[in-house]
Amino acid sequence: MQFTALQIATLIKGTLEGNPEVKVSKVSKIEEAIEGSLSFVANPKYEEYLYSSKASVIIVNESLKLAAPVSATLIRVADAYMAFALLLEKYNEMVSNAGKNGIEQPSYVSKTASIGKDVYIAAFAYIGENVIIGDRVKIYPGCYIGDNVVINEDSVLYSGVKIYNECSVGSRVFIHSGCVIGGDGFGFAPLNNGSYKKVPQIGNVIIEDDVEIGANTTIDRATMGSTYIRKGVKLDNLIQIAHNVDIGENTVIAAQTGVSGSTKIGKNCVIGGQVGIVGHIHIADGTKINAQSGLSKSVLEANQALNGSPAFDYKSSLRSQAVFRNLPELNQRIMKLEETIAQLAALVKQDISINE
Amino acid sequence: MQFTALQIATLIKGTLEGNPEVKVSKVSKIEEAIEGSLSFVANPKYEEYLYSSKASVIIVNESLKLAAPVSATLIRVADAYMAFALLLEKYNEMVSNAGKNGIEQPSYVSKTASIGKDVYIAAFAYIGENVIIGDRVKIYPGCYIGDNVVINEDSVLYSGVKIYNECSVGSRVFIHSGCVIGGDGFGFAPLNNGSYKKVPQIGNVIIEDDVEIGANTTIDRATMGSTYIRKGVKLDNLIQIAHNVDIGENTVIAAQTGVSGSTKIGKNCVIGGQVGIVGHIHIADGTKINAQSGLSKSVLEANQALNGSPAFDYKSSLRSQAVFRNLPELNQRIMKLEETIAQLAALVKQDISINE
Amino acid sequence: MQFTALQIATLIKGTLEGNPEVKVSKVSKIEEAIEGSLSFVANPKYEEYLYSSKASVIIVNESLKLAAPVSATLIRVADAYMAFALLLEKYNEMVSNAGKNGIEQPSYVSKTASIGKDVYIAAFAYIGENVIIGDRVKIYPGCYIGDNVVINEDSVLYSGVKIYNECSVGSRVFIHSGCVIGGDGFGFAPLNNGSYKKVPQIGNVIIEDDVEIGANTTIDRATMGSTYIRKGVKLDNLIQIAHNVDIGENTVIAAQTGVSGSTKIGKNCVIGGQVGIVGHIHIADGTKINAQSGLSKSVLEANQALNGSPAFDYKSSLRSQAVFRNLPELNQRIMKLEETIAQLAALVKQDISINE
Repeated sequence: MQFTALQIATLIKGTLEGNPEVKVSKVSKIEEAIEGSLSFVANPKYEEYLYSSKASVIIVNESLKLAAPVSATLIRVADAYMAFALLLEKYNEMVSNAGKNGIEQPSYVSKTASIGKDVYIAAFAYIGENVIIGDRVKIYPGCYIGDNVVINEDSVLYSGVKIYNECSVGSRVFIHSGCVIGGDGFGFAPLNNGSYKKVPQIGNVIIEDDVEIGANTTIDRATMGSTYIRKGVKLDNLIQIAHNVDIGENTVIAAQTGVSGSTKIGKNCVIGGQVGIVGHIHIADGTKINAQSGLSKSVLEANQALNGSPAFDYKSSLRSQAVFRNLPELNQRIMKLEETIAQLAALVKQDISINE
Repeated sequence: MQFTALQIATLIKGTLEGNPEVKVSKVSKIEEAIEGSLSFVANPKYEEYLYSSKASVIIVNESLKLAAPVSATLIRVADAYMAFALLLEKYNEMVSNAGKNGIEQPSYVSKTASIGKDVYIAAFAYIGENVIIGDRVKIYPGCYIGDNVVINEDSVLYSGVKIYNECSVGSRVFIHSGCVIGGDGFGFAPLNNGSYKKVPQIGNVIIEDDVEIGANTTIDRATMGSTYIRKGVKLDNLIQIAHNVDIGENTVIAAQTGVSGSTKIGKNCVIGGQVGIVGHIHIADGTKINAQSGLSKSVLEANQALNGSPAFDYKSSLRSQAVFRNLPELNQRIMKLEETIAQLAALVKQDISINE
Repeated sequence: MQFTALQIATLIKGTLEGNPEVKVSKVSKIEEAIEGSLSFVANPKYEEYLYSSKASVIIVNESLKLAAPVSATLIRVADAYMAFALLLEKYNEMVSNAGKNGIEQPSYVSKTASIGKDVYIAAFAYIGENVIIGDRVKIYPGCYIGDNVVINEDSVLYSGVKIYNECSVGSRVFIHSGCVIGGDGFGFAPLNNGSYKKVPQIGNVIIEDDVEIGANTTIDRATMGSTYIRKGVKLDNLIQIAHNVDIGENTVIAAQTGVSGSTKIGKNCVIGGQVGIVGHIHIADGTKINAQSGLSKSVLEANQALNGSPAFDYKSSLRSQAVFRNLPELNQRIMKLEETIAQLAALVKQDISINE
């Protein structure tokens, strides 16, 4: 497929600079673009590539000031990243998931399951008792859908997703390969002989609409009640969400972070990778937590930024980290002070004794 | 199903306070309980909910002193959490795993495998050569059991568990979805040209009785000999256990922790989430390790508590962390001291020179 | 199978000390060796076992100096670990993967797929449209190979590996159970209402030759272009590799480490477990990063060693960590200095006033 710069500019409502008739047939990162590529520059870090790029068409921010001539046709828009994402989305719709329809064999669909219209159920998918699958849902090979699970319309479960019984998944939810939804929460009561007794986990997991969950992430079912992943939440790969956690709307969590049991995270939080959050705390709306931080206390005030393990105010934490690097030198300065002061003290006392 | 407060009190041998005839039909967390709910309060953190709860029956500790009147019927027992867990267990037995029996089709069971009585082998499960499956074992859809594996009675493998050849699993073991047992240990010998040569991993993994393993946890086979998960060990989700590790009886490990090769962990240890433990060390019985700690040395004395990365004594570590927050201020104080002392030194020397 | 010490010495070109006719029938770790065992000692940590071992044959380094008599027949070689690995490899070839050949049923192989010679495709494996599978590739039960994927000769995909469409895998690549290759990168553009819009991920993952990837590791497809795992890279379990990352030849990464988007890691790096690396940075060839470190900046100079979160020079970092343990004492010393200096200042001023 080929598109002209003009067609693209029209589609994303941008302003053209350069030849409107130049054609592109592929999309590329700016640093890898060749003739015929459509590319974009949104992050100033990548602006340097603009001037040497062989790309035929480049989408840029309206606000960009050129530091040198550019050979490509430019299309200026308010937000180059968003405009490019929109184009990719249209492209993706044409390419991926195409032709995935119907029920492949061999698959296992319980007679008591209710299957919507235009559904894709791949070979080796397993649909348990009383499961309800909404219209246009796609279930890739090797998925397991336990008894009484509900999956609403337009959701996609990639290969090997496992959903335990009683859980529910909203509309337009994307769950990537290897995710486990609804495994038992980690609850054990210590016995006198040092062993542990399992606390049965009889709750479920409720995933609301427009959620995306990365590969091999695990979300445990509640002991009682539900573990909630609210509308619009985005979870990266290899994240652990423990039993009875509640993650607020539009909160984003990066890879390998873990949230312990019964913690409630607010809306619109941004949580970095490899963060650890203890159980039974509340995190206010709009909290930002830097990667590798460890949260051990509730965050009561909204929109704070935190860092460190244990985490505290982001900027203060950076200052402490800066001094940390110089601790050996600090130690030396204290030793020096101790010596000097001992000499001075001797001097002063001697001096005083002379005077007396 | 409905139960009266009296029936429940009798079952868990508790003392009734309030109407013995009130009925419950569901179990709820105390903060979500409604009329008809059975609930419990064990953690003092949740005691506040006791006084406003609409629950019909609440199980509490014998030792609890009421700070205000309570509308629910109370049942007092020595350990409210344990009593409640017991009730959930009985409830769970009635609901989950029910009706999972027999060999679903299509599944793959090698002719050389030996299958016990009352076993559940789901569709898309794969049972390799010479596998031995004990009585009442349940194997959910999409599990893979490699050649020569033994799984003892009453164990449950949830959907998508993978067990490589030659490994063994004890009785009453629960393994959650996506676990990988017996993958190759990470052993490579460096060559002169900068590349690495794989060291074949010809050992196995031995999982003893009464173990529970969380979703997507990985346990590598030994280079030679065995990686051991001893009786009663509880592992949470997304944990990494490397080759030749040995985890002692009744040790509990929270999510996303990693244990490096050949490390031996004692009995009754409690290890938090996201902890890292280096290889080739010993950890004494009863060691407690706080979340996100990094252990780089053996722990020789039993029952110690550790924290930090690198980890040291828990309480000392908290004190160091407290000073860490104030490092910029500490730095200021040192600068102030340096200034003051320079002024004093000048003063003293001037003074002395005057006197001389 | 039985081998004599002489046969083994000949095979690995070692020098015999002791009875050349003694026979071994199994391989064991030195601390678990019994009569009839072949074992090795390479790490000085394990030398103590040499003198009490019941092993019949022990491979040791040429350079080893005996501190006491040894009952076993010794075979001396330049590198005992490598020689032993070579033997294990030959042993492993005889035992594992043996008899895995042909296409088991039920499996799903698209009619448009091209399958090489002597391939193993297990039951419940799924091979999508236009997939190309090279000669002698082994695909274990429950693997998913998406449309247009290429897998080159002699590679092994253990049970439950998921490879999304358009990705490619080199020759002699080993991918362990539960790995997810080519899931969507974590890219979302924030909208004004606080929600996020998915950025389609239309690139792929390219895995070059001689790579090994541990269980449940996830490697995301590029937004555009490719995520690269270069020749000879070894990845451990539960690692997260984000979109557009490029990992250089022969770099080794331990378990649970995460690499954020668009970061480029050089050749021959050695990266410990649970390390976090931010996005959009470059790491020079030969960099060593200690376990649990957090890298937030590019590493420009080759062959540096780093530690800590945030990471800096390894040795300096250890010195800072050593002072960290004594921070409470440092604080005390500063308080003491402040007191002493206040007393001195009072004394000096008094003294001066006397003199004046």
